[in-house]
Amino acid sequence: MGSNLTRISITLEENVLEQFDAQIRQQGFPTRSEAVKQLIKASLVEQEWQTGEMVAGVVTLVYDHHKPGMLDEIVGRQHDYGAIALCSQHAHLDHHNCMENIIVKGPVEEVKKLFHSLETIKGIKRCSLTMTTTGKHF
Amino acid sequence: MGSNLTRISITLEENVLEQFDAQIRQQGFPTRSEAVKQLIKASLVEQEWQTGEMVAGVVTLVYDHHKPGMLDEIVGRQHDYGAIALCSQHAHLDHHNCMENIIVKGPVEEVKKLFHSLETIKGIKRCSLTMTTTGKHF
Amino acid sequence: MGSNLTRISITLEENVLEQFDAQIRQQGFPTRSEAVKQLIKASLVEQEWQTGEMVAGVVTLVYDHHKPGMLDEIVGRQHDYGAIALCSQHAHLDHHNCMENIIVKGPVEEVKKLFHSLETIKGIKRCSLTMTTTGKHF
Amino acid sequence: MGSNLTRISITLEENVLEQFDAQIRQQGFPTRSEAVKQLIKASLVEQEWQTGEMVAGVVTLVYDHHKPGMLDEIVGRQHDYGAIALCSQHAHLDHHNCMENIIVKGPVEEVKKLFHSLETIKGIKRCSLTMTTTGKHF
Repeated sequence: MGSNLTRISITLEENVLEQFDAQIRQQGFPTRSEAVKQLIKASLVEQEWQTGEMVAGVVTLVYDHHKPGMLDEIVGRQHDYGAIALCSQHAHLDHHNCMENIIVKGPVEEVKKLFHSLETIKGIKRCSLTMTTTGKHF
Repeated sequence: MGSNLTRISITLEENVLEQFDAQIRQQGFPTRSEAVKQLIKASLVEQEWQTGEMVAGVVTLVYDHHKPGMLDEIVGRQHDYGAIALCSQHAHLDHHNCMENIIVKGPVEEVKKLFHSLETIKGIKRCSLTMTTTGKHF
Repeated sequence: MGSNLTRISITLEENVLEQFDAQIRQQGFPTRSEAVKQLIKASLVEQEWQTGEMVAGVVTLVYDHHKPGMLDEIVGRQHDYGAIALCSQHAHLDHHNCMENIIVKGPVEEVKKLFHSLETIKGIKRCSLTMTTTGKHF
Repeated sequence: MGSNLTRISITLEENVLEQFDAQIRQQGFPTRSEAVKQLIKASLVEQEWQTGEMVAGVVTLVYDHHKPGMLDEIVGRQHDYGAIALCSQHAHLDHHNCMENIIVKGPVEEVKKLFHSLETIKGIKRCSLTMTTTGKHF
Protein backbone atom coordinates (compact mmCIF):
# COMPACT_ATOMS: atom_id res chain seq x y z
CA MET A 1 0.00 0.00 0.00
CA GLY A 2 3.01 2.19 0.24
CA SER A 3 1.80 3.16 3.70
CA ASN A 4 4.03 5.40 5.78
CA LEU A 5 5.73 3.96 8.79
CA THR A 6 4.93 5.16 12.25
CA ARG A 7 6.34 4.48 15.68
CA ILE A 8 4.52 3.53 18.87
CA SER A 9 5.81 2.68 22.29
CA ILE A 10 4.64 -0.12 24.52
CA THR A 11 5.08 -0.56 28.27
CA LEU A 12 5.39 -4.08 29.60
CA GLU A 13 6.96 -6.13 32.36
CA GLU A 14 10.69 -6.79 32.07
CA ASN A 15 10.33 -10.53 32.51
CA VAL A 16 7.61 -10.75 29.85
CA LEU A 17 9.92 -8.92 27.48
CA GLU A 18 12.80 -11.26 28.27
CA GLN A 19 10.68 -14.27 27.46
CA PHE A 20 9.32 -12.71 24.30
CA ASP A 21 12.82 -11.88 23.14
CA ALA A 22 13.85 -15.49 23.71
CA GLN A 23 10.86 -16.72 21.74
CA ILE A 24 11.41 -14.51 18.73
CA ARG A 25 15.14 -15.22 18.67
CA GLN A 26 14.29 -18.91 18.50
CA GLN A 27 11.82 -18.35 15.66
CA GLY A 28 14.33 -16.25 13.78
CA PHE A 29 12.57 -12.89 13.77
CA PRO A 30 15.09 -10.19 12.83
CA THR A 31 13.58 -7.52 15.08
CA ARG A 32 11.03 -7.12 17.83
CA SER A 33 9.03 -4.79 15.62
CA GLU A 34 8.61 -7.51 12.99
CA ALA A 35 7.50 -10.01 15.63
CA VAL A 36 4.97 -7.67 17.24
CA LYS A 37 3.67 -6.67 13.80
CA GLN A 38 3.03 -10.32 12.95
CA LEU A 39 0.97 -10.72 16.12
CA ILE A 40 -1.02 -7.59 15.35
CA LYS A 41 -1.60 -8.68 11.77
CA ALA A 42 -2.70 -12.17 12.79
CA SER A 43 -5.27 -10.52 15.02
CA LEU A 44 -6.45 -8.27 12.17
CA VAL A 45 -6.71 -11.14 9.67
CA GLU A 46 -8.92 -12.99 12.13
CA GLN A 47 -11.17 -9.98 12.26
CA GLU A 48 -11.10 -9.57 8.46
CA TRP A 49 -12.68 -13.02 8.20
CA GLN A 50 -15.23 -12.37 10.93
CA THR A 51 -16.51 -9.02 9.81
CA GLY A 52 -14.93 -8.29 6.46
CA GLU A 53 -16.63 -8.03 3.14
CA MET A 54 -13.87 -9.22 0.84
CA VAL A 55 -11.52 -11.97 1.99
CA ALA A 56 -8.67 -13.90 0.43
CA GLY A 57 -7.62 -17.45 1.18
CA VAL A 58 -6.53 -20.82 -0.10
CA VAL A 59 -8.44 -24.08 -0.39
CA THR A 60 -6.04 -27.02 -0.12
CA LEU A 61 -7.11 -30.45 -1.34
CA VAL A 62 -5.27 -33.76 -0.97
CA TYR A 63 -6.65 -36.64 -3.04
CA ASP A 64 -5.84 -39.67 -5.14
CA HIS A 65 -6.09 -38.56 -8.75
CA HIS A 66 -6.75 -42.16 -9.84
CA LYS A 67 -10.34 -41.92 -8.65
CA PRO A 68 -12.47 -41.70 -11.80
CA GLY A 69 -14.22 -38.40 -12.21
CA MET A 70 -12.30 -36.69 -9.38
CA LEU A 71 -10.49 -34.14 -11.51
CA ASP A 72 -13.67 -33.22 -13.38
CA GLU A 73 -15.48 -32.62 -10.11
CA ILE A 74 -12.70 -30.42 -8.75
CA VAL A 75 -12.57 -28.27 -11.85
CA GLY A 76 -16.34 -28.24 -12.25
CA ARG A 77 -17.05 -26.95 -8.78
CA GLN A 78 -14.48 -24.20 -9.17
CA HIS A 79 -16.27 -23.11 -12.32
CA ASP A 80 -19.56 -22.96 -10.41
CA TYR A 81 -17.87 -20.19 -8.40
CA GLY A 82 -15.87 -18.76 -11.25
CA ALA A 83 -15.56 -15.26 -9.89
CA ILE A 84 -14.12 -16.53 -6.62
CA ALA A 85 -11.63 -19.20 -7.64
CA LEU A 86 -8.71 -17.23 -9.08
CA CYS A 87 -6.33 -19.99 -10.07
CA SER A 88 -5.04 -23.33 -8.92
CA GLN A 89 -1.82 -25.23 -8.55
CA HIS A 90 -1.32 -28.97 -8.64
CA ALA A 91 1.57 -30.99 -7.24
CA HIS A 92 2.38 -34.68 -7.03
CA LEU A 93 3.05 -35.76 -3.47
CA ASP A 94 3.70 -39.35 -4.52
CA HIS A 95 2.49 -41.82 -7.13
CA HIS A 96 -1.06 -41.67 -5.84
CA ASN A 97 -1.45 -38.45 -3.92
CA CYS A 98 -1.93 -34.97 -5.32
CA MET A 99 -2.18 -31.64 -3.59
CA GLU A 100 -4.19 -28.85 -5.15
CA ASN A 101 -4.21 -25.25 -3.95
CA ILE A 102 -6.98 -22.98 -5.12
CA ILE A 103 -6.59 -19.26 -4.48
CA VAL A 104 -9.93 -17.77 -3.55
CA LYS A 105 -11.03 -14.17 -3.18
CA GLY A 106 -14.49 -12.77 -2.64
CA PRO A 107 -17.29 -12.22 -0.14
CA VAL A 108 -16.73 -14.45 2.90
CA GLU A 109 -20.02 -16.32 2.53
CA GLU A 110 -19.32 -17.20 -1.09
CA VAL A 111 -15.79 -18.34 -0.29
CA LYS A 112 -17.11 -20.65 2.42
CA LYS A 113 -19.72 -22.09 0.06
CA LEU A 114 -17.03 -22.94 -2.48
CA PHE A 115 -14.95 -24.48 0.30
CA HIS A 116 -17.83 -26.69 1.46
CA SER A 117 -18.58 -27.61 -2.14
CA LEU A 118 -15.00 -28.84 -2.64
CA GLU A 119 -14.79 -30.44 0.80
CA THR A 120 -17.78 -32.64 0.05
CA ILE A 121 -16.47 -34.18 -3.15
CA LYS A 122 -16.64 -37.92 -2.54
CA GLY A 123 -13.19 -39.34 -1.96
CA ILE A 124 -11.27 -36.18 -1.08
CA LYS A 125 -8.75 -37.14 1.61
CA ARG A 126 -8.47 -33.72 3.17
CA CYS A 127 -9.72 -30.24 2.39
CA SER A 128 -8.55 -27.19 4.37
CA LEU A 129 -9.35 -23.51 4.17
CA THR A 130 -6.51 -21.10 4.94
CA MET A 131 -7.64 -17.63 5.88
CA THR A 132 -5.26 -14.86 4.96
CA THR A 133 -5.51 -11.19 4.08
CA THR A 134 -6.33 -9.47 0.81
CA GLY A 135 -3.44 -7.19 1.71
CA LYS A 136 -5.66 -4.17 1.12
CA HIS A 137 -5.46 -2.75 4.61
CA PHE A 138 -1.95 -3.85 5.49
CA MET B 1 6.37 -11.19 39.90
CA GLY B 2 6.54 -7.65 40.92
CA SER B 3 8.54 -7.26 37.76
CA ASN B 4 9.70 -3.81 36.80
CA LEU B 5 8.15 -2.17 33.82
CA THR B 6 10.13 -1.41 30.73
CA ARG B 7 9.41 0.41 27.49
CA ILE B 8 9.99 -0.72 23.92
CA SER B 9 9.19 0.94 20.67
CA ILE B 10 7.70 -0.66 17.60
CA THR B 11 7.71 0.53 13.99
CA LEU B 12 4.75 -0.36 11.85
CA GLU B 13 2.68 0.87 8.91
CA GLU B 14 0.27 3.70 9.64
CA ASN B 15 -2.70 1.90 8.15
CA VAL B 16 -2.01 -1.25 10.18
CA LEU B 17 -1.93 0.88 13.30
CA GLU B 18 -5.20 2.57 12.39
CA GLN B 19 -6.91 -0.78 11.99
CA PHE B 20 -5.42 -2.13 15.19
CA ASP B 21 -6.58 0.94 17.10
CA ALA B 22 -10.09 0.44 15.74
CA GLN B 23 -10.02 -3.21 16.79
CA ILE B 24 -8.85 -2.60 20.34
CA ARG B 25 -11.29 0.27 20.80
CA GLN B 26 -14.08 -2.07 19.83
CA GLN B 27 -12.87 -4.74 22.27
CA GLY B 28 -12.57 -2.19 25.04
CA PHE B 29 -8.84 -2.24 25.67
CA PRO B 30 -7.89 0.83 27.71
CA THR B 31 -4.51 1.30 26.04
CA ARG B 32 -2.48 0.02 23.12
CA SER B 33 0.13 -1.29 25.53
CA GLU B 34 -2.45 -3.52 27.21
CA ALA B 35 -3.62 -4.86 23.85
CA VAL B 36 -0.12 -5.60 22.54
CA LYS B 37 0.80 -7.20 25.87
CA GLN B 38 -2.17 -9.57 25.59
CA LEU B 39 -1.01 -10.66 22.13
CA ILE B 40 2.52 -11.23 23.39
CA LYS B 41 1.29 -13.16 26.40
CA ALA B 42 -1.03 -15.34 24.30
CA SER B 43 1.99 -16.24 22.22
CA LEU B 44 4.04 -17.05 25.33
CA VAL B 45 1.28 -19.20 26.87
CA GLU B 46 1.14 -21.24 23.69
CA GLN B 47 4.85 -21.85 24.01
CA GLU B 48 4.54 -22.64 27.74
CA TRP B 49 2.29 -25.56 26.78
CA GLN B 50 4.52 -26.73 23.95
CA THR B 51 7.84 -26.71 25.72
CA GLY B 52 7.17 -25.93 29.34
CA GLU B 53 7.68 -28.20 32.28
CA MET B 54 4.93 -26.95 34.59
CA VAL B 55 1.62 -25.80 33.16
CA ALA B 56 -1.67 -24.60 34.58
CA GLY B 57 -5.10 -25.02 33.07
CA VAL B 58 -8.74 -25.88 33.55
CA VAL B 59 -10.68 -29.00 32.62
CA THR B 60 -14.33 -28.11 31.97
CA LEU B 61 -16.97 -30.84 32.01
CA VAL B 62 -20.63 -30.58 31.07
CA TYR B 63 -22.80 -33.56 32.02
CA ASP B 64 -26.14 -34.73 33.31
CA HIS B 65 -25.67 -35.47 37.00
CA HIS B 66 -28.63 -37.87 36.94
CA LYS B 67 -26.52 -40.53 35.28
CA PRO B 68 -25.82 -43.11 37.98
CA GLY B 69 -22.18 -43.32 38.98
CA MET B 70 -21.17 -40.18 37.07
CA LEU B 71 -20.20 -38.10 40.09
CA ASP B 72 -18.18 -40.95 41.56
CA GLU B 73 -16.27 -41.36 38.33
CA ILE B 74 -15.47 -37.65 38.11
CA VAL B 75 -14.19 -37.48 41.66
CA GLY B 76 -12.41 -40.82 41.41
CA ARG B 77 -10.40 -39.93 38.37
CA GLN B 78 -9.32 -36.66 39.93
CA HIS B 79 -8.04 -38.58 42.90
CA ASP B 80 -6.02 -40.83 40.58
CA TYR B 81 -4.13 -37.65 39.72
CA GLY B 82 -4.29 -36.09 43.14
CA ALA B 83 -1.21 -33.96 42.84
CA ILE B 84 -2.46 -32.37 39.65
CA ALA B 85 -6.13 -31.65 40.29
CA LEU B 86 -6.06 -28.68 42.68
CA CYS B 87 -9.74 -28.07 43.26
CA SER B 88 -13.05 -28.09 41.48
CA GLN B 89 -16.18 -26.02 41.15
CA HIS B 90 -19.65 -27.22 40.30
CA ALA B 91 -22.56 -25.21 38.89
CA HIS B 92 -26.09 -26.05 37.83
CA LEU B 93 -26.76 -24.94 34.27
CA ASP B 94 -30.34 -26.20 34.39
CA HIS B 95 -32.33 -29.01 36.01
CA HIS B 96 -30.27 -31.68 34.23
CA ASN B 97 -27.00 -30.10 33.20
CA CYS B 98 -24.00 -29.39 35.40
CA MET B 99 -20.73 -27.72 34.64
CA GLU B 100 -17.61 -28.67 36.55
CA ASN B 101 -14.30 -26.82 36.38
CA ILE B 102 -11.21 -28.56 37.66
CA ILE B 103 -8.09 -26.46 38.12
CA VAL B 104 -5.04 -28.44 37.08
CA LYS B 105 -1.35 -27.75 37.52
CA GLY B 106 1.61 -29.98 36.83
CA PRO B 107 3.83 -31.46 34.13
CA VAL B 108 2.12 -31.10 30.75
CA GLU B 109 2.04 -34.85 30.03
CA GLU B 110 0.36 -35.61 33.35
CA VAL B 111 -2.19 -32.84 32.85
CA LYS B 112 -3.11 -34.24 29.44
CA LYS B 113 -3.48 -37.74 30.86
CA LEU B 114 -5.92 -36.48 33.49
CA PHE B 115 -7.78 -34.58 30.77
CA HIS B 116 -8.13 -37.70 28.60
CA SER B 117 -9.15 -39.71 31.63
CA LEU B 118 -12.01 -37.30 32.36
CA GLU B 119 -12.92 -36.87 28.70
CA THR B 120 -13.49 -40.58 28.31
CA ILE B 121 -15.99 -40.99 31.15
CA LYS B 122 -19.02 -42.57 29.52
CA GLY B 123 -21.81 -40.04 29.16
CA ILE B 124 -19.86 -36.80 29.50
CA LYS B 125 -21.46 -34.31 27.12
CA ARG B 126 -18.39 -32.19 26.61
CA CYS B 127 -14.92 -31.97 28.09
CA SER B 128 -12.54 -29.12 27.25
CA LEU B 129 -9.01 -28.28 28.31
CA THR B 130 -8.17 -24.59 28.72
CA MET B 131 -4.49 -23.82 28.56
CA THR B 132 -3.38 -20.85 30.60
CA THR B 133 -0.26 -19.72 32.38
CA THR B 134 1.10 -20.58 35.81
CA GLY B 135 1.83 -16.85 36.05
CA LYS B 136 5.40 -17.64 37.06
CA HIS B 137 7.08 -15.89 34.16
CA PHE B 138 4.58 -13.12 33.61
CA MET C 1 -31.82 -34.85 28.38
CA GLY C 2 -32.70 -38.51 28.79
CA SER C 3 -32.49 -38.80 25.01
CA ASN C 4 -32.90 -42.24 23.48
CA LEU C 5 -29.92 -43.87 21.89
CA THR C 6 -29.82 -44.61 18.21
CA ARG C 7 -27.42 -46.45 15.93
CA ILE C 8 -25.89 -45.28 12.67
CA SER C 9 -23.39 -46.94 10.42
CA ILE C 10 -20.43 -45.32 8.74
CA THR C 11 -18.43 -46.51 5.73
CA LEU C 12 -14.76 -45.61 5.64
CA GLU C 13 -11.40 -46.84 4.38
CA GLU C 14 -9.80 -49.71 6.31
CA ASN C 15 -6.50 -47.89 6.76
CA VAL C 16 -8.21 -44.75 8.07
CA LEU C 17 -10.06 -46.91 10.59
CA GLU C 18 -6.84 -48.62 11.66
CA GLN C 19 -5.20 -45.27 12.33
CA PHE C 20 -8.23 -43.92 14.14
CA ASP C 21 -8.37 -47.02 16.33
CA ALA C 22 -4.70 -46.53 17.21
CA GLN C 23 -5.32 -42.88 18.05
CA ILE C 24 -8.29 -43.52 20.34
CA ARG C 25 -6.55 -46.43 22.07
CA GLN C 26 -3.69 -44.09 22.85
CA GLN C 27 -6.05 -41.43 24.21
CA GLY C 28 -7.85 -44.00 26.32
CA PHE C 29 -11.30 -43.90 24.73
CA PRO C 30 -13.24 -46.97 25.86
CA THR C 31 -15.11 -47.42 22.58
CA ARG C 32 -15.11 -46.11 19.02
CA SER C 33 -18.63 -44.78 19.56
CA GLU C 34 -17.44 -42.58 22.42
CA ALA C 35 -14.59 -41.22 20.32
CA VAL C 36 -16.74 -40.46 17.28
CA LYS C 37 -19.38 -38.88 19.51
CA GLN C 38 -16.76 -36.53 20.97
CA LEU C 39 -15.77 -35.39 17.47
CA ILE C 40 -19.40 -34.81 16.53
CA LYS C 41 -20.06 -32.89 19.73
CA ALA C 42 -16.97 -30.72 19.30
CA SER C 43 -18.29 -29.79 15.88
CA LEU C 44 -21.73 -28.99 17.32
CA VAL C 45 -20.33 -26.88 20.16
CA GLU C 46 -18.43 -24.80 17.62
CA GLN C 47 -21.69 -24.21 15.81
CA GLU C 48 -23.53 -23.44 19.07
CA TRP C 49 -21.12 -20.54 19.58
CA GLN C 50 -21.38 -19.33 15.99
CA THR C 51 -25.11 -19.37 15.56
CA GLY C 52 -26.60 -20.19 18.95
CA GLU C 53 -28.67 -17.91 21.12
CA MET C 54 -27.69 -19.17 24.56
CA VAL C 55 -24.16 -20.33 25.24
CA ALA C 56 -22.23 -21.56 28.25
CA GLY C 57 -18.56 -21.14 28.95
CA VAL C 58 -15.82 -20.29 31.40
CA VAL C 59 -13.71 -17.18 31.76
CA THR C 60 -10.33 -18.07 33.26
CA LEU C 61 -8.17 -15.36 34.81
CA VAL C 62 -4.61 -15.61 36.07
CA TYR C 63 -3.36 -12.66 38.13
CA ASP C 64 -1.34 -11.51 41.07
CA HIS C 65 -3.81 -10.80 43.87
CA HIS C 66 -1.33 -8.41 45.50
CA LYS C 67 -2.16 -5.71 42.98
CA PRO C 68 -4.26 -3.15 44.82
CA GLY C 69 -7.82 -2.95 43.61
CA MET C 70 -7.56 -6.06 41.44
CA LEU C 71 -10.07 -8.17 43.36
CA ASP C 72 -12.59 -5.33 43.47
CA GLU C 73 -12.35 -4.88 39.72
CA ILE C 74 -12.86 -8.59 39.06
CA VAL C 75 -15.91 -8.80 41.28
CA GLY C 76 -17.26 -5.45 40.11
CA ARG C 77 -17.19 -6.30 36.44
CA GLN C 78 -18.95 -9.59 37.07
CA HIS C 79 -21.70 -7.67 38.84
CA ASP C 80 -22.07 -5.41 35.82
CA TYR C 81 -23.13 -8.57 33.99
CA GLY C 82 -24.91 -10.17 36.92
CA ALA C 83 -27.29 -12.28 34.92
CA ILE C 84 -24.45 -13.84 32.96
CA ALA C 85 -21.79 -14.58 35.56
CA LEU C 86 -23.17 -17.57 37.46
CA CYS C 87 -20.46 -18.19 40.01
CA SER C 88 -16.72 -18.18 40.39
CA GLN C 89 -13.93 -20.24 41.88
CA HIS C 90 -10.60 -19.06 43.13
CA ALA C 91 -7.40 -21.07 43.58
CA HIS C 92 -3.88 -20.24 44.70
CA LEU C 93 -1.33 -21.29 42.12
CA ASP C 94 1.55 -20.05 44.25
CA HIS C 95 2.27 -17.27 46.73
CA HIS C 96 1.56 -14.58 44.12
CA ASN C 97 -0.56 -16.12 41.43
CA CYS C 98 -4.26 -16.83 41.55
CA MET C 99 -6.53 -18.51 39.07
CA GLU C 100 -10.18 -17.56 38.91
CA ASN C 101 -12.81 -19.40 36.88
CA ILE C 102 -16.09 -17.66 36.21
CA ILE C 103 -18.93 -19.76 34.81
CA VAL C 104 -20.87 -17.75 32.26
CA LYS C 105 -24.18 -18.44 30.54
CA GLY C 106 -26.22 -16.21 28.32
CA PRO C 107 -26.55 -14.67 24.86
CA VAL C 108 -23.25 -15.03 23.02
CA GLU C 109 -22.79 -11.27 22.51
CA GLU C 110 -23.26 -10.54 26.19
CA VAL C 111 -20.87 -13.30 27.19
CA LYS C 112 -18.20 -11.90 24.90
CA LYS C 113 -18.70 -8.41 26.32
CA LEU C 114 -18.16 -9.70 29.84
CA PHE C 115 -15.08 -11.57 28.64
CA HIS C 116 -13.58 -8.44 27.06
CA SER C 117 -14.44 -6.44 30.17
CA LEU C 118 -12.49 -8.87 32.36
CA GLU C 119 -9.67 -9.27 29.83
CA THR C 120 -9.00 -5.56 29.87
CA ILE C 121 -8.53 -5.18 33.63
CA LYS C 122 -5.12 -3.61 34.00
CA GLY C 123 -2.60 -6.13 35.24
CA ILE C 124 -4.39 -9.38 34.40
CA LYS C 125 -1.72 -11.84 33.32
CA ARG C 126 -3.95 -13.96 31.16
CA CYS C 127 -7.66 -14.16 30.43
CA SER C 128 -9.16 -17.01 28.37
CA LEU C 129 -12.66 -17.85 27.24
CA THR C 130 -13.56 -21.53 27.06
CA MET C 131 -16.52 -22.28 24.86
CA THR C 132 -18.56 -25.28 25.88
CA THR C 133 -22.15 -26.42 25.59
CA THR C 134 -25.20 -25.59 27.67
CA GLY C 135 -25.92 -29.30 27.44
CA LYS C 136 -29.45 -28.53 26.29
CA HIS C 137 -29.23 -30.25 22.93
CA PHE C 138 -26.83 -33.04 23.80
CA MET D 1 -4.27 -45.84 -1.66
CA GLY D 2 -6.87 -48.20 -3.07
CA SER D 3 -7.77 -49.14 0.50
CA ASN D 4 -10.78 -51.38 0.98
CA LEU D 5 -13.85 -49.92 2.54
CA THR D 6 -15.15 -51.15 5.83
CA ARG D 7 -18.26 -50.47 7.88
CA ILE D 8 -18.51 -49.54 11.54
CA SER D 9 -21.52 -48.70 13.64
CA ILE D 10 -21.81 -45.91 16.16
CA THR D 11 -24.28 -45.50 19.02
CA LEU D 12 -25.28 -41.98 19.97
CA GLU D 13 -28.14 -39.96 21.38
CA GLU D 14 -31.06 -39.26 19.04
CA ASN D 15 -30.97 -35.51 19.64
CA VAL D 16 -27.23 -35.29 18.98
CA LEU D 17 -27.80 -37.12 15.70
CA GLU D 18 -30.64 -34.77 14.74
CA GLN D 19 -28.42 -31.76 15.29
CA PHE D 20 -25.53 -33.31 13.45
CA ASP D 21 -27.77 -34.13 10.50
CA ALA D 22 -28.94 -30.51 10.42
CA GLN D 23 -25.35 -29.29 10.49
CA ILE D 24 -24.12 -31.49 7.67
CA ARG D 25 -27.17 -30.76 5.52
CA GLN D 26 -26.39 -27.09 5.89
CA GLN D 27 -22.73 -27.62 4.93
CA GLY D 28 -23.74 -29.70 1.93
CA PHE D 29 -22.29 -33.07 2.90
CA PRO D 30 -23.83 -35.75 0.68
CA THR D 31 -23.86 -38.45 3.37
CA ARG D 32 -23.30 -38.86 7.10
CA SER D 33 -20.40 -41.19 6.36
CA GLU D 34 -18.59 -38.45 4.46
CA ALA D 35 -19.13 -35.98 7.28
CA VAL D 36 -17.95 -38.34 10.02
CA LYS D 37 -14.96 -39.34 7.90
CA GLN D 38 -13.93 -35.69 7.58
CA LEU D 39 -14.01 -35.31 11.37
CA ILE D 40 -11.94 -38.45 11.83
CA LYS D 41 -9.44 -37.34 9.20
CA ALA D 42 -9.10 -33.86 10.70
CA SER D 43 -8.24 -35.53 14.00
CA LEU D 44 -5.66 -37.77 12.28
CA VAL D 45 -4.04 -34.88 10.41
CA GLU D 46 -3.60 -33.05 13.69
CA GLN D 47 -1.81 -36.10 15.05
CA GLU D 48 0.27 -36.46 11.86
CA TRP D 49 1.71 -33.01 12.57
CA GLN D 50 2.28 -33.68 16.26
CA THR D 51 3.97 -37.04 16.04
CA GLY D 52 4.54 -37.76 12.38
CA GLU D 53 7.85 -37.96 10.60
CA MET D 54 6.86 -36.72 7.16
CA VAL D 55 4.27 -33.99 6.78
CA ALA D 56 2.78 -32.03 3.90
CA GLY D 57 1.50 -28.50 3.96
CA VAL D 58 1.31 -25.11 2.32
CA VAL D 59 3.04 -21.86 3.19
CA THR D 60 0.91 -18.92 2.07
CA LEU D 61 2.46 -15.48 1.69
CA VAL D 62 0.74 -12.17 0.99
CA TYR D 63 3.02 -9.28 0.08
CA ASP D 64 3.53 -6.24 -2.08
CA HIS D 65 5.79 -7.31 -4.93
CA HIS D 66 6.92 -3.70 -5.42
CA LYS D 67 9.22 -3.96 -2.41
CA PRO D 68 12.75 -4.14 -3.79
CA GLY D 69 14.44 -7.47 -3.18
CA MET D 70 11.28 -9.17 -1.94
CA LEU D 71 10.98 -11.71 -4.75
CA ASP D 72 14.65 -12.63 -4.49
CA GLU D 73 14.30 -13.25 -0.77
CA ILE D 74 11.25 -15.46 -1.24
CA VAL D 75 12.90 -17.58 -3.90
CA GLY D 76 16.24 -17.62 -2.11
CA ARG D 77 14.87 -18.92 1.17
CA GLN D 78 12.99 -21.68 -0.64
CA HIS D 79 16.26 -22.74 -2.24
CA ASP D 80 17.87 -22.91 1.20
CA TYR D 81 15.37 -25.68 1.88
CA GLY D 82 15.33 -27.11 -1.60
CA ALA D 83 14.33 -30.61 -0.68
CA ILE D 84 11.28 -29.36 1.21
CA ALA D 85 9.79 -26.68 -1.03
CA LEU D 86 8.20 -28.65 -3.88
CA CYS D 87 6.78 -25.87 -6.01
CA SER D 88 5.08 -22.54 -5.75
CA GLN D 89 2.20 -20.63 -7.28
CA HIS D 90 1.82 -16.90 -7.59
CA ALA D 91 -1.36 -14.87 -8.07
CA HIS D 92 -2.14 -11.19 -8.32
CA LEU D 93 -4.73 -10.15 -5.75
CA ASP D 94 -4.68 -6.55 -6.96
CA HIS D 95 -2.22 -4.06 -8.42
CA HIS D 96 -0.02 -4.22 -5.33
CA ASN D 97 -0.76 -7.44 -3.54
CA CYS D 98 0.43 -10.90 -4.45
CA MET D 99 -0.33 -14.26 -2.94
CA GLU D 100 2.20 -17.03 -3.12
CA ASN D 101 1.55 -20.66 -2.14
CA ILE D 102 4.52 -22.91 -1.56
CA ILE D 103 3.84 -26.64 -1.28
CA VAL D 104 6.08 -28.15 1.37
CA LYS D 105 6.78 -31.75 2.28
CA GLY D 106 9.34 -33.17 4.66
CA PRO D 107 10.22 -33.72 8.30
CA VAL D 108 8.03 -31.53 10.50
CA GLU D 109 10.97 -29.67 12.08
CA GLU D 110 12.43 -28.76 8.71
CA VAL D 111 9.07 -27.61 7.39
CA LYS D 112 8.61 -25.33 10.38
CA LYS D 113 12.10 -23.88 9.93
CA LEU D 114 11.30 -23.01 6.32
CA PHE D 115 8.01 -21.48 7.45
CA HIS D 116 9.72 -19.29 10.05
CA SER D 117 12.37 -18.33 7.51
CA LEU D 118 9.70 -17.09 5.08
CA GLU D 119 7.59 -15.52 7.82
CA THR D 120 10.47 -13.34 8.90
CA ILE D 121 11.18 -11.75 5.54
CA LYS D 122 10.97 -8.03 6.18
CA GLY D 123 7.79 -6.60 4.71
CA ILE D 124 5.73 -9.78 4.33
CA LYS D 125 2.13 -8.81 5.11
CA ARG D 126 1.03 -12.25 6.22
CA CYS D 127 2.50 -15.72 6.25
CA SER D 128 0.44 -18.78 7.18
CA LEU D 129 1.21 -22.48 7.45
CA THR D 130 -1.56 -24.88 6.45
CA MET D 131 -1.15 -28.35 7.86
CA THR D 132 -2.58 -31.11 5.73
CA THR D 133 -1.88 -34.78 5.11
CA THR D 134 0.66 -36.49 2.86
CA GLY D 135 -2.23 -38.75 1.92
CA LYS D 136 -0.06 -41.78 2.65
CA HIS D 137 -2.22 -43.23 5.41
CA PHE D 138 -5.61 -42.13 4.19
